This record gives sequence, structure tokens and C-alpha cells, in this order.
Amino acid sequence: MTGQQAPVKLDTPAGVHSFLDQYDTFLFDCDGVLWLGTHLLPLVKETLAMLTAKGKQLYFVTNNSTKSRAAYAKKFASFGITVGVEQIFTSSYAAALHVRDELRLAPGADKIWVFGEAGIQDELQLMGYETMGGADERLDAPFAADASPFLEGGLDPAVRAVVAGLDTHLNYHRLSVTLQYLQQPEVAFVATNLDNTLPQKGLKLPGAGTMIQCLVTASGREPQACGKPNQNMLKSIVAATGLDRTRTCMVGDRLNTDMRFGADGGLGTLLVLTGIETEAGALAPSAEHPQPAYYADKLGSLYEFSEIV
Amino acid sequence: MTGQQAPVKLDTPAGVHSFLDQYDTFLFDCDGVLWLGTHLLPLVKETLAMLTAKGKQLYFVTNNSTKSRAAYAKKFASFGITVGVEQIFTSSYAAALHVRDELRLAPGADKIWVFGEAGIQDELQLMGYETMGGADERLDAPFAADASPFLEGGLDPAVRAVVAGLDTHLNYHRLSVTLQYLQQPEVAFVATNLDNTLPQKGLKLPGAGTMIQCLVTASGREPQACGKPNQNMLKSIVAATGLDRTRTCMVGDRLNTDMRFGADGGLGTLLVLTGIETEAGALAPSAEHPQPAYYADKLGSLYEFSEIV
Repeated sequence: MTGQQAPVKLDTPAGVHSFLDQYDTFLFDCDGVLWLGTHLLPLVKETLAMLTAKGKQLYFVTNNSTKSRAAYAKKFASFGITVGVEQIFTSSYAAALHVRDELRLAPGADKIWVFGEAGIQDELQLMGYETMGGADERLDAPFAADASPFLEGGLDPAVRAVVAGLDTHLNYHRLSVTLQYLQQPEVAFVATNLDNTLPQKGLKLPGAGTMIQCLVTASGREPQACGKPNQNMLKSIVAATGLDRTRTCMVGDRLNTDMRFGADGGLGTLLVLTGIETEAGALAPSAEHPQPAYYADKLGSLYEFSEIV
Repeated sequence: MTGQQAPVKLDTPAGVHSFLDQYDTFLFDCDGVLWLGTHLLPLVKETLAMLTAKGKQLYFVTNNSTKSRAAYAKKFASFGITVGVEQIFTSSYAAALHVRDELRLAPGADKIWVFGEAGIQDELQLMGYETMGGADERLDAPFAADASPFLEGGLDPAVRAVVAGLDTHLNYHRLSVTLQYLQQPEVAFVATNLDNTLPQKGLKLPGAGTMIQCLVTASGREPQACGKPNQNMLKSIVAATGLDRTRTCMVGDRLNTDMRFGADGGLGTLLVLTGIETEAGALAPSAEHPQPAYYADKLGSLYEFSEIV
């Protein structure tokens, strides 16, 4: 399999041209690949424009659940890059698809309790689901078992699922009410993604997976996780775009999510070294995650070498 | 071993008299045994007075890390029960003993980062340690990687340990800064206790263990846990009180903490059914935890039957 061959570094014009010829479609992770926080990485715009000019299809696949796809399109626009909502797949959208297509909950009737930020709530509401929890300001108040407006009249029996993701506004009130719903066996438990850390400004901060693990420990239940490397996310993308897996390459900065996602899905894989991983990490075989087929110093390397004939 | 014999129910005068004759010292868990929250359980005061009148030594051993021993003594006083600080052992005190006696950190020089409530901070400060974090109001502010007063000038190199426990004021700021200290391999990681849930007013709320697990997931490190059933706690109690293990009985309401703690320590064990466990649970053999040697409907049963000659 691809994991057996040493990763090929894309650092020559011939190598890059041959790489580009193999694929019609590219899936990009965003943070660590296109940008770091609010800082666009070098030659990203030029690389995306070059790929589009060559007739490649581009999609953006992120485990960041805090923003809706519409908010992501605005982020691209803020960098002067035009991307349509239909090109964007987030873990909160994947979670909403799971609620609709796998759990088959009924919009307008079944409700969803949200532990997480606006992206989850927005995508669920776009599908017609009524959400509770999330950013509701009443959850900012200190928790008291006999005074929470979410517990006073008992749990809402219309809630049929908990969708949980990164919540930088987490507090004991949000955790406690979420746990009460998870203690109901008929309420499904869905996680956007399980990334343990969130790189930001040179720091490793607590990721969605740390909060999910808090809920797992408290409830004794395991969630259905929807983000990379879960293949349901890829199935949704294939269904929506009709991409040919044999002519598609996943581009990312993480071995355990992006490269796993691509390798498990039968896609080509390209690791860029502008995010989490180092060249040594890319080259070291590991039982824990697949090696990439290709790697490059940065996404912009594709542009640099493709310009040289 | 004791686990092989079916638990004996204390529901006759002869049974209770024989039970009491076996022990000189009793260790009591508090919540679920003596009280439920702010509600004293029936005949607790009478039972403790009866035991004291018989010359028994009484100690109170709780995994609740949120209060100092002094604050616990006040709680007893609020129920009209006089208990000295030297009779009280909490998981935050056990954690402070661990910092002093096992980690051998230097009071006045080494600092401790606290993730948790006042009990931890108070016990560490009583031993002369300077603490950071904990209830510090600056941690109530929303987190920004480049604006936290705890990260702006870099981490404090004098911090040599993180002590973590239940924190109902947890937020992303507290988790994020705590994680930065845990990413320093030379900073020790100490947990007060690992209880997953916290029973309160009929609800199961998130316990210390859920927050510790959040930090474990984020850091990839496992803490030294100091509370029951960890035997370091019992060693500290034996060292401080000189109790004879063969003449001591642990009284509690949880199989996986209290009964485990007593059985592993070679103590007698009495389970009361006023807290977490049911009679069926007490009688069902399990590979996960030891059965108690004795069980009773409530602690007050000792008083009721001891009064009948």
C-alpha cells in the first residue's frame, strides 16, 4: 500500500508537474495549510489560482466546528480568495448531515442540544432543526442544580441528540446540563471532531477532543465523531461533489487526521509542513498513522515549482 | 479474602454489637454517609456520639477537594457536631502532603499552579507554598493567547507542579493556562481525586475526574491521584493518627472509592445505602470493585441497634 513507500518530497519542477497531473480534485485542510489563524501563508492565493486555472476542482475540509460554512466563505473572502459555500465542508456541517441522514431526526419536531459554538447551531438550524444550549446566555450564569432554567421544568423530551464540539465558552453549567441529556439513553451523542489540541499563535490549546472526553468520562458513553478522519465526512463530500477518489488528493498538516482521512478513503495524500508536523515526523514510519504519499515544505511550493517549466 | 464472603447486613442488635467490638477506629466518608449536601442524615449525630462514648476514634476522609479541612470543621459545626481539624482528611490535603512529602517541593521557593477551588489553595498555602491560578479573578476573563496575564511574560519558571481537582469555575482560560504548564515535562501533575460524577440534589453532575480527563487528553500525561482509593491517603492518615489497620473500619457509600480504599488498605469495610449504591449493588459480586464486609441501610442503623441490649 502507499504506506509502504517512503514519502516523496515535492521539491523539483518535474516532481510537482507529475504530481499535479495525477489529480483532478484537491481537498484542503485549512488551518496550518492555507493560513495560521488570521495570517495567510505564503503563495497560497497563487497556488489556488494556478490549480483553478488548470481546471482542478478545489474543496476545503476542516474540523473547525466553530464557524458555519457561510462564515468560512467570509474568512476566505477576507483574504481575497473567492470560495463558494458548496466548496466548504466543516465538521459541524458533517455533524448536521449525520443528524439528518443517519439519525434521521425530524426537523421542526426533534430538537438538538448543542455543546459548542455558532457553527454547530447555524448548520443545524439551516437544516430546520430547533437547537437548545450552545451560546445561550442563560448558560453563562453560575450553575445551581435547582435554579438552572434548563433543568427546572425537567429535561425537554423533544431533545433527541446532543451535538458536541469545541466550546471556548465551556463552563460547569454547560457541562452539567449536557450531561443530564447524555444520561438519557435515547438521546444520541454526536461529536463534531476529536482533535485533542488546537494550535494557536505558537501554543497548543485544548481542542474539541478534550471537552468531548470530559463528557465521555462523565457519561460513560462514546460519541459518533463526524470530522476527519471519520469516513462519513468523505462519503458526504463524494455524494455532494461526485469526485473520483482515484483522481483526488487530500492536502493537510496532520498525520492523524488529514493523512489518515485521505489514506483510509483511498485518496492521494500530501502533507505540508506549515502546521503541526515536521519533516522528521513525516518521514518516520509509525504504527499509529499512515505516512503521506507526498510532502512539501508548504502549499506554496506547488506554485513555485509549477511556474518553472 | 474478605471479598469471597457475602456482605453481612447490620440489622440486628447482636450483629451491631459484634461489629462495634471489632473496631477501635472508624474512618467515615462524608457526603452520602453523614449528609447529603446540606441535609444531615437521620441519627448521624447520635451515632457519632455513641461511638465517641464507647471510646472509638473517629476520622473523616473525603474526596471533596473544594473545601479546606478548616472549612469542613465549620460544616460539621453547622450541624452541631464538634470535629477537630486533625480528625479531617480531604483529597486537597492529601494532594498538599504529596507535594511536600513525595515531590519534596520547597515552600517559599517552588510555586504550584492550581486548577480547582479554595480547598486546594488553602491547604497548599497552609504548608507555605505560593499558589497561582485557582480562583484568581483574572482567569474569569475570556481567554486570548496573546492577552492572558498568565502567559504574556511567559510561564513562571518557579512553578514545579500542577494540582488539579474539581473546579465548578472551569473555563477555557483556566484549561488553557493549566495545559501550558502541563506541557512542561519538569512540572509534576497531581490530581486530588478522579471521581467521575458528583451527586447533588438527585442529579449526577460532572466530577473532578471529568476535568482531570480533559487535561489528560490535552496533555497526554497521567496525574498522580491522591484521593481515595489511592493508598497514599491511608498512609498519611496512619502516619498522623497511629491507627491500627486491623482494628479500623472504613465507612462509605461508594464501592469503587470507599470500599476499594478500605479493602486495599487491609481495613474492615462498611457500606451504607444512603448515597450512591443500592442493596442489590452491594450484594452483587463484581470484578471491578471489592464487596464490603458489612453493609447497613444507613449509618444511623448502628445507633438504633446499639441501643437495644
